[in-house]
Amino acid sequence: MYELGRSKRASRAHSFDDVAIAPTRRTRSEHEVDLSWRIDAVTFEAPIVAAPMDSVMSPATAIRMGELGGLGVLNLEGLWTRYEDPSSQYEQLTEPMDQVTATRRMQQIYAEPIKGELIAERLKTIRDAGVPVAGALSPANTLEFADVIEKAALDFFMVRGTTVSAEHVDDAEATLNLKDFIYRFETPVIVGGCATYRTALHLMRAGAAGVLVGFGGGAAHTTASVLGIEVPMASAVADVAEARRDYLEESGGRYVHLIADGAVGRSGDVAKAIACGADAVMVGSPLARATEAPGRGWHWGPEAWHATLPRGERVFFDQVGSLGEVVNGPSHVPDGTMNLAGGLRKAMALTGYTDIKSFQRIDLILR
Amino acid sequence: MYELGRSKRASRAHSFDDVAIAPTRRTRSEHEVDLSWRIDAVTFEAPIVAAPMDSVMSPATAIRMGELGGLGVLNLEGLWTRYEDPSSQYEQLTEPMDQVTATRRMQQIYAEPIKGELIAERLKTIRDAGVPVAGALSPANTLEFADVIEKAALDFFMVRGTTVSAEHVDDAEATLNLKDFIYRFETPVIVGGCATYRTALHLMRAGAAGVLVGFGGGAAHTTASVLGIEVPMASAVADVAEARRDYLEESGGRYVHLIADGAVGRSGDVAKAIACGADAVMVGSPLARATEAPGRGWHWGPEAWHATLPRGERVFFDQVGSLGEVVNGPSHVPDGTMNLAGGLRKAMALTGYTDIKSFQRIDLILR
Amino acid sequence: MYELGRSKRASRAHSFDDVAIAPTRRTRSEHEVDLSWRIDAVTFEAPIVAAPMDSVMSPATAIRMGELGGLGVLNLEGLWTRYEDPSSQYEQLTEPMDQVTATRRMQQIYAEPIKGELIAERLKTIRDAGVPVAGALSPANTLEFADVIEKAALDFFMVRGTTVSAEHVDDAEATLNLKDFIYRFETPVIVGGCATYRTALHLMRAGAAGVLVGFGGGAAHTTASVLGIEVPMASAVADVAEARRDYLEESGGRYVHLIADGAVGRSGDVAKAIACGADAVMVGSPLARATEAPGRGWHWGPEAWHATLPRGERVFFDQVGSLGEVVNGPSHVPDGTMNLAGGLRKAMALTGYTDIKSFQRIDLILR
Amino acid sequence: MYELGRSKRASRAHSFDDVAIAPTRRTRSEHEVDLSWRIDAVTFEAPIVAAPMDSVMSPATAIRMGELGGLGVLNLEGLWTRYEDPSSQYEQLTEPMDQVTATRRMQQIYAEPIKGELIAERLKTIRDAGVPVAGALSPANTLEFADVIEKAALDFFMVRGTTVSAEHVDDAEATLNLKDFIYRFETPVIVGGCATYRTALHLMRAGAAGVLVGFGGGAAHTTASVLGIEVPMASAVADVAEARRDYLEESGGRYVHLIADGAVGRSGDVAKAIACGADAVMVGSPLARATEAPGRGWHWGPEAWHATLPRGERVFFDQVGSLGEVVNGPSHVPDGTMNLAGGLRKAMALTGYTDIKSFQRIDLILR
Repeated sequence: MYELGRSKRASRAHSFDDVAIAPTRRTRSEHEVDLSWRIDAVTFEAPIVAAPMDSVMSPATAIRMGELGGLGVLNLEGLWTRYEDPSSQYEQLTEPMDQVTATRRMQQIYAEPIKGELIAERLKTIRDAGVPVAGALSPANTLEFADVIEKAALDFFMVRGTTVSAEHVDDAEATLNLKDFIYRFETPVIVGGCATYRTALHLMRAGAAGVLVGFGGGAAHTTASVLGIEVPMASAVADVAEARRDYLEESGGRYVHLIADGAVGRSGDVAKAIACGADAVMVGSPLARATEAPGRGWHWGPEAWHATLPRGERVFFDQVGSLGEVVNGPSHVPDGTMNLAGGLRKAMALTGYTDIKSFQRIDLILR
Repeated sequence: MYELGRSKRASRAHSFDDVAIAPTRRTRSEHEVDLSWRIDAVTFEAPIVAAPMDSVMSPATAIRMGELGGLGVLNLEGLWTRYEDPSSQYEQLTEPMDQVTATRRMQQIYAEPIKGELIAERLKTIRDAGVPVAGALSPANTLEFADVIEKAALDFFMVRGTTVSAEHVDDAEATLNLKDFIYRFETPVIVGGCATYRTALHLMRAGAAGVLVGFGGGAAHTTASVLGIEVPMASAVADVAEARRDYLEESGGRYVHLIADGAVGRSGDVAKAIACGADAVMVGSPLARATEAPGRGWHWGPEAWHATLPRGERVFFDQVGSLGEVVNGPSHVPDGTMNLAGGLRKAMALTGYTDIKSFQRIDLILR
Repeated sequence: MYELGRSKRASRAHSFDDVAIAPTRRTRSEHEVDLSWRIDAVTFEAPIVAAPMDSVMSPATAIRMGELGGLGVLNLEGLWTRYEDPSSQYEQLTEPMDQVTATRRMQQIYAEPIKGELIAERLKTIRDAGVPVAGALSPANTLEFADVIEKAALDFFMVRGTTVSAEHVDDAEATLNLKDFIYRFETPVIVGGCATYRTALHLMRAGAAGVLVGFGGGAAHTTASVLGIEVPMASAVADVAEARRDYLEESGGRYVHLIADGAVGRSGDVAKAIACGADAVMVGSPLARATEAPGRGWHWGPEAWHATLPRGERVFFDQVGSLGEVVNGPSHVPDGTMNLAGGLRKAMALTGYTDIKSFQRIDLILR
Repeated sequence: MYELGRSKRASRAHSFDDVAIAPTRRTRSEHEVDLSWRIDAVTFEAPIVAAPMDSVMSPATAIRMGELGGLGVLNLEGLWTRYEDPSSQYEQLTEPMDQVTATRRMQQIYAEPIKGELIAERLKTIRDAGVPVAGALSPANTLEFADVIEKAALDFFMVRGTTVSAEHVDDAEATLNLKDFIYRFETPVIVGGCATYRTALHLMRAGAAGVLVGFGGGAAHTTASVLGIEVPMASAVADVAEARRDYLEESGGRYVHLIADGAVGRSGDVAKAIACGADAVMVGSPLARATEAPGRGWHWGPEAWHATLPRGERVFFDQVGSLGEVVNGPSHVPDGTMNLAGGLRKAMALTGYTDIKSFQRIDLILR
């Protein structure tokens, strides 16, 4: 703890940019490295989850993500569940325009109500393709569409907001009681964002199969400027990893997965997230660079279209290759935005690790 | 304390940019959050005070600020009290020109003497609109116009300079004795800038109803370059908050309000200022972005027109919406410069707080 | 050690940019300074080694480097050993083009197999010029061409990769056993990159005559972004210097040389590297500025052409003078990219040192 | 002390930019502030010394500096002592050209030998104007022109180099023995640059009337890049101030003056330098902005024209006003580059100090 002033102390927290993975005295061959990630009943070839953002996830790219060995998550309160055919909306959102115009246009387009039947239809499309099915709602919309979700028999349901707590207090409204909700729900629930030991521990006790660690840390989020709230990701993941360990003991063996959700823009960040203690990462911006991305290089998240307090920019990325190349390579760019799995694999091989779980223990340095 | 060199030690201080608000394990609903701020006999809907700068405050915008639930403060030694009709001066100050020309022009325009009768007239205009009335003078001009101010029966009178001390020493001149002045004065006096525990404690003992915490920390101030003096705002507020606590005990219950005055440019800074211990914030640059701002996007403060040692730039901001939108939303920009009250409200809700006073206790992190 | 989060601690590491050499109370005359560096049977006039990168080292420039008193190292898996006459490939690689095109073109051009007979021929060319002969291979290619190398009777053979360990583990493949390899090999072997005390100690125990200290720290390397692995150079050199000392005692007197390999772009960095404990430096980018550089100002390393995970950019530098001027002066630029030896010499004279070995003990400061 | 790596520790040092002056609980009136600085037999109105750089000091501007209450120091190995009429050389050096051309041209122009009779003539011109006379030579040229200097009966003679030690060791050459030189010399000698406690203490023991504290810290110096040597100014001044105190006691009352020489570009830096413990400051770049500056806005120092290892850039500054306005105001720019004395005066008044000596004790903060 550092003294900020006479009446206040503060703890120091660090971002992925602040840290680096330290080499060890061993190396391994890349072909020996096993990136597989098993959560609940599903095993993925690589611990890479695509963020539920309309700019990167359509039913088609969610399917493609599954085929590539990762998990695609559809935003269940985005364009695909508000519009029968969202192609005109995508047209409007991928035109060149200034930020203010883009924000106003997003606020208009996302004012259209969410339709339960479209949720069901989109999820069925993904299921029919034979890949794992996952979708996300914010806490505010979860109760309304819980039945639709339940019927859709997802592999994973995500409750994802800027922050999610197990103790939301409201004297007036009926609000989502996470513990009750998860208990009654058949589908494994992954919840977040959370960014501290205590919040994560509460979410784990509420029954979450996994927690999303993060709080507006992404490239296109401006939460820190708008709300003043921020938890640098390296420290957030390392804090929540301790909650996982304590809950594992307290629960007599329930292992809750940590998915780093924010500031994972390059393969080096994927490696750092695991090294800080994550089991998997959720990525957005690297996928926006894929030629299949529905945003055609433009990238925006749910924070960007908030009706009264938007907290995200629409940003543009050059498209560099197919979704397959972005996830599994080969890469043709030297900046870590392609071959995310390959970058992680090589980082592990060069430091002598062959599985994700033990790589979580590698030494880090502060730069 | 850190060793700077063998003969000197220094303490570390932090700016709002250095800190972030840490999430907690609780969330609340936004409609439960109460932003109201009561100081002396007045209750404001939000703890937002408009800075006495000609670029943002005219009688009209001071009135509008009051209607919006905040406090507008008129600069009583600015264009409105030097000129019967300052519209020509505003014209000249809002033309495109380089910094040197702008500085020279400001030095000329502000050389015109202040008129007591204009002070009275402007304050009456605001009072007639039925909103709280506040005006500011620098310490050097306070004695001369004290009678005019007294007669105008303001709700709050501000003595505002780069720094104000309760122990100004001058062997030759008759200078403002703050303690005597405040004692004799009916109107509650808010004094500043101050930036340290000891200065603040002295101002409190002199009878101030509130203190302005800051020292040239604003976007357009260059005090640090010109004078070398600077107190990063997060530490300054946290230091002065301890003085408030000690004085509360020492005085047997007098609560002196802290108004963070400097470096509050975005809604996230508003939240951080409160989180560091402030009761309210004084803002300038965000209001310069309102369509009603008399500076038409150009923004300058009293430091900028100093006759021999100017310490502020004239800067330009894009206008983004009405004053109402800037203060209370809705926002159409993702950078925290609109919907200041909404940003504070959401920050409090997401971290589980429902009133300003308890939000002062939230944990902070150093980034 | 600093706490990164509840479950993880991290050590702090520093780059050359983070440190500076502290003046002492003595000065010496420049003509008294002896920059000579003796390693194995060879004495060099200055401790400057040219990096085995095709953009700076051809047989001709390797010879010139030796004539100038330093050591030129030819990349034995680069253009000169893949192509009988690489001039057309150099043409293609020194055209203006964007990074993605450049990366793809490098991936194609370097897909051509390495020829053992070209290795022999290039090394003979250098030997015939009467200068010390050195060449480098990556660990993966070392075994295949070991016989060719052995026959070529180099003065120094370098095994150089992103990281090299003495304990590479592979359950399936036959991999390079460094200890056996060095033991059987007549030529002194210099090995790296390594960046930590323990790795370096293992390499020393494996019989290395010198170790390259570094891990993708160069100007054109993007290893930190792609892999997340990084060791800031000042700390890396200072760590490995302790391994040298401990091994010197443990071995009863074997002195293993430290060559700082990365982030040495200016003469000030050369001085800092020695001051951190290095015996010599390996430089790339300053040599790319020489008029003789085969890359004609364009600069790229082996990481840049990796087939599936490129980790280096092709960058351009203005050419400032001859290779002789870059290494030994006179300089006509004020930024430390010319007269590398002269900069080191003056730094030593101004701080009162006359030989490399004692200059390693000079005090450093953290900026 | 911080651990840099296992074999090396380093101390932390801070620049003027790293620190700020902390407000106190008192303020004073500006007219009460006394900026006078007495050294040896001369009292200056303000503690401001003009650096011996051809871009700012000619005989005419040295005279003007004296008239303005400060001290002008002529470079006795610059254009004015190499050329009878240097106007053509000034023409050539103030043309637009790239850095490499500028460096080469400076190297040519300054290859012309220094003439003793021109030294005498230029100093006489200054003396005839009735202002204090000061000139500077580097250690290498001091012995050759010592007689000329002695005859010129300067008020102050400066031995000024990148670094100057009292223990220069040279086995072969006859070198300047500072102690003997100062002992035999009638004129008070000011010596530097020095940047550490021990070097300064040795210079004080050698009999220096004042020491220049600095080591290539100026705006146009690239010493840190070229040599790797650097001492951030705030720490350097604070260290040397302790040497002054210790020497004062050891010598039974000899007070040696500290002149901060480097990184003083704005009035805020002047105030910080005094606050760190300096008695006066030597400034270069602010004076280059005066309309009378012989460099016409272009600015370069002796390091820039070194024959084999140039360590300074030629840089351009906009001209903002007369030399009088730059030194004593009034200012028309808000960035601290005009009215240096006024900035210092106001900084002292706002923090409650009325003389230079006590202002050295003010508290500083690390930003």
